[in-house]
Amino acid sequence: MTTTWLAVPQDSPFGPHNLPYGVFTAPDQPGRRRIGVAIGGFVLDVGAAARAVGEPSVLLDADSLNPLLAAGRPIWTQVRASLTRWLGEESYRAAVSPCLLERGEVELHLPFEVADYVDFYASEHHASNLGRIFRPGSDPLTPNWKHLPIGYHGRAGTVVVSGTPVVRPHGQRKAPADPMPSFGPTRRLDIEAEVGFVVGAGSTLGSPVPLESFREHVFGVLLLNDWSARDIQAWEYVPLGPFLGKSFATSVSPWVVPLDALEHARVAPPARDVEPLPYLDDRDAEPWGLDLSLEVRLNGHPISRPPFAAMYWTAAQQLAHLTVNGASLRPGDLFASGTVSGPEVDSRGALIELTWNGENPVELPDGTTRTFLENGDEVTITATAPGPDGTRIGFGEVTGRIVP
Amino acid sequence: MTTTWLAVPQDSPFGPHNLPYGVFTAPDQPGRRRIGVAIGGFVLDVGAAARAVGEPSVLLDADSLNPLLAAGRPIWTQVRASLTRWLGEESYRAAVSPCLLERGEVELHLPFEVADYVDFYASEHHASNLGRIFRPGSDPLTPNWKHLPIGYHGRAGTVVVSGTPVVRPHGQRKAPADPMPSFGPTRRLDIEAEVGFVVGAGSTLGSPVPLESFREHVFGVLLLNDWSARDIQAWEYVPLGPFLGKSFATSVSPWVVPLDALEHARVAPPARDVEPLPYLDDRDAEPWGLDLSLEVRLNGHPISRPPFAAMYWTAAQQLAHLTVNGASLRPGDLFASGTVSGPEVDSRGALIELTWNGENPVELPDGTTRTFLENGDEVTITATAPGPDGTRIGFGEVTGRIVP
Repeated sequence: MTTTWLAVPQDSPFGPHNLPYGVFTAPDQPGRRRIGVAIGGFVLDVGAAARAVGEPSVLLDADSLNPLLAAGRPIWTQVRASLTRWLGEESYRAAVSPCLLERGEVELHLPFEVADYVDFYASEHHASNLGRIFRPGSDPLTPNWKHLPIGYHGRAGTVVVSGTPVVRPHGQRKAPADPMPSFGPTRRLDIEAEVGFVVGAGSTLGSPVPLESFREHVFGVLLLNDWSARDIQAWEYVPLGPFLGKSFATSVSPWVVPLDALEHARVAPPARDVEPLPYLDDRDAEPWGLDLSLEVRLNGHPISRPPFAAMYWTAAQQLAHLTVNGASLRPGDLFASGTVSGPEVDSRGALIELTWNGENPVELPDGTTRTFLENGDEVTITATAPGPDGTRIGFGEVTGRIVP
Repeated sequence: MTTTWLAVPQDSPFGPHNLPYGVFTAPDQPGRRRIGVAIGGFVLDVGAAARAVGEPSVLLDADSLNPLLAAGRPIWTQVRASLTRWLGEESYRAAVSPCLLERGEVELHLPFEVADYVDFYASEHHASNLGRIFRPGSDPLTPNWKHLPIGYHGRAGTVVVSGTPVVRPHGQRKAPADPMPSFGPTRRLDIEAEVGFVVGAGSTLGSPVPLESFREHVFGVLLLNDWSARDIQAWEYVPLGPFLGKSFATSVSPWVVPLDALEHARVAPPARDVEPLPYLDDRDAEPWGLDLSLEVRLNGHPISRPPFAAMYWTAAQQLAHLTVNGASLRPGDLFASGTVSGPEVDSRGALIELTWNGENPVELPDGTTRTFLENGDEVTITATAPGPDGTRIGFGEVTGRIVP
């Protein structure tokens, strides 16, 4: 069992088995971004720690995670082992202690520069719910859904870190009964609770990344809120897909949980009732279902607990699909799962499902109700996963408040 | 009239009114990327020229155009004036001459790092043709088409420079009559002849860029081939739009023609038969239709001459739409027009239209015919636009050969 000389409660989401990476600034040097690792209530300045112990690394002494992402799996393993040693062995205590900052005192930033951002649609419950809402009477899933993980490219430049205010977007809205579109602020601002995967090592144009190479390319995992303006999206999305209904903001949690911290969270994905084509067939491969328990809070009140283990398509399948046409990967590519929705009403990851397109408003403890988000509303998504020996691996949170 | 002490033929596409920017390496230093400007049969090493004339600029002494892009309109104007002076005034000749390289001796690279890549769908002829092919009997345009410039995000990481071989992508294909999808190389590999717009100055999240600010943000223009695997696209694209059918490669021409070089190419866009919403209403604004004449050659044989002036939506409208929801811009953002198709059969910018979904194959001089591209085929797109005093502004070419 991994231990630490630091005082970290056994039930801490940021115990010594987790060691998620982020980028922070501290009050003493507000302009200088540094890589940090969360441990208990602290952030370890890993560049400073490396220097203090005499193992300097330019990968750790950077202002974003991108150099570390580009370094690849063998280096990620080596760096994680170093961190575990520095925080675990008493002999490092004197050197490393001065490199710890109180977590509440630092400001967290977008941890890496996003290269390409892709969003999938991998929850059968979510896709079926939307099908039932928008195409009642027909098959809730499109014919391709169980043959391939449907995805699309989103806007990398508007991925923002948790805490960034979300400006209610303006755009064209047209209900089916309206004769013409009108312009104004969205009336149907929604969330999508998702899990994002951070690509580290890139790949070569023309060379697909097979299922079994997932671990060589994916560095870690974070939480993501794919804010969605349902009215803008509904009017624009035929035939080329979502655009302005999504591109105004995508929020991510500031801590990237290393894939290595999720070994105990791995589970078999749901049974597939359509035989996958060979490049997507993971029945004999190591399973990449992940037992993450998400929680969505609206103004502090839990409104949903989506189970990530229920996702039909795994991240390994998504990466294999994304590259099967020869598309290359770059360090900093981010791909997200799509809305995480479970089978129960209170495990759905978007308001459009939770309220069934506004028919059944969500009730809040203050007596108000919501169909979609109002100005001032704050949405927070958190998650944990099983760690070793009964511990939990925490993801921190992704939060955002709606401003006019 | 702008002149130069260099021997440049009057009919050169790269005369002194053009001065397009690119990034090159020369045989003497194959590892060192430098910014160049095309002039006649030469490339001016602009970083070296700046030093030679004693006006050093870190923006010109860079390995990509990104720092210059980020600098903004006033600097772009100043740099262009400097280049015109260096190449125009006899007094600079001795200092600048040694900084000229034969254009045939340099290797051209992707001129900037692409931030986000967006592809529009702005030709009414193209959209109508596809509607007639895929939805015979119904309205060829979707209801939203004349209300907004439809667009989607593409993959920035697979934008490649002209000359890069295009590997025929594999993927899932399923014709309507097939019971199940099959996996293999695309059988319907197509081109889309497009014009791309390079964003220089960025914008702030939450602040739309109105029509009249187009010139402040857009640095220049290039040619683009949006390679498309029609069978992969047809099976995947409902409901979230094109993904793997496009993401395997997008080729761009190596020379970015400055917006300033296109003043004489500006024309009024076609009459709009649906009144645009105010943020898209350019009827009282300066017109941003552009009279570019494209030519598409297949294995050296011209197969189409698409007229860019026929595009329904202008680049200024596209930029206004792209940002109206508050989405921010970054230096290096690239947005493309969508396939340029005119009203005539031989002015269509994609094989699917030229051959009417394969019904009318294109005949080549060697006696063979094409419905879609075969391995070994080479497609080249060129364009020119009117310059001052009867000159032509050339865009060079974007070319690519299909490999298995």
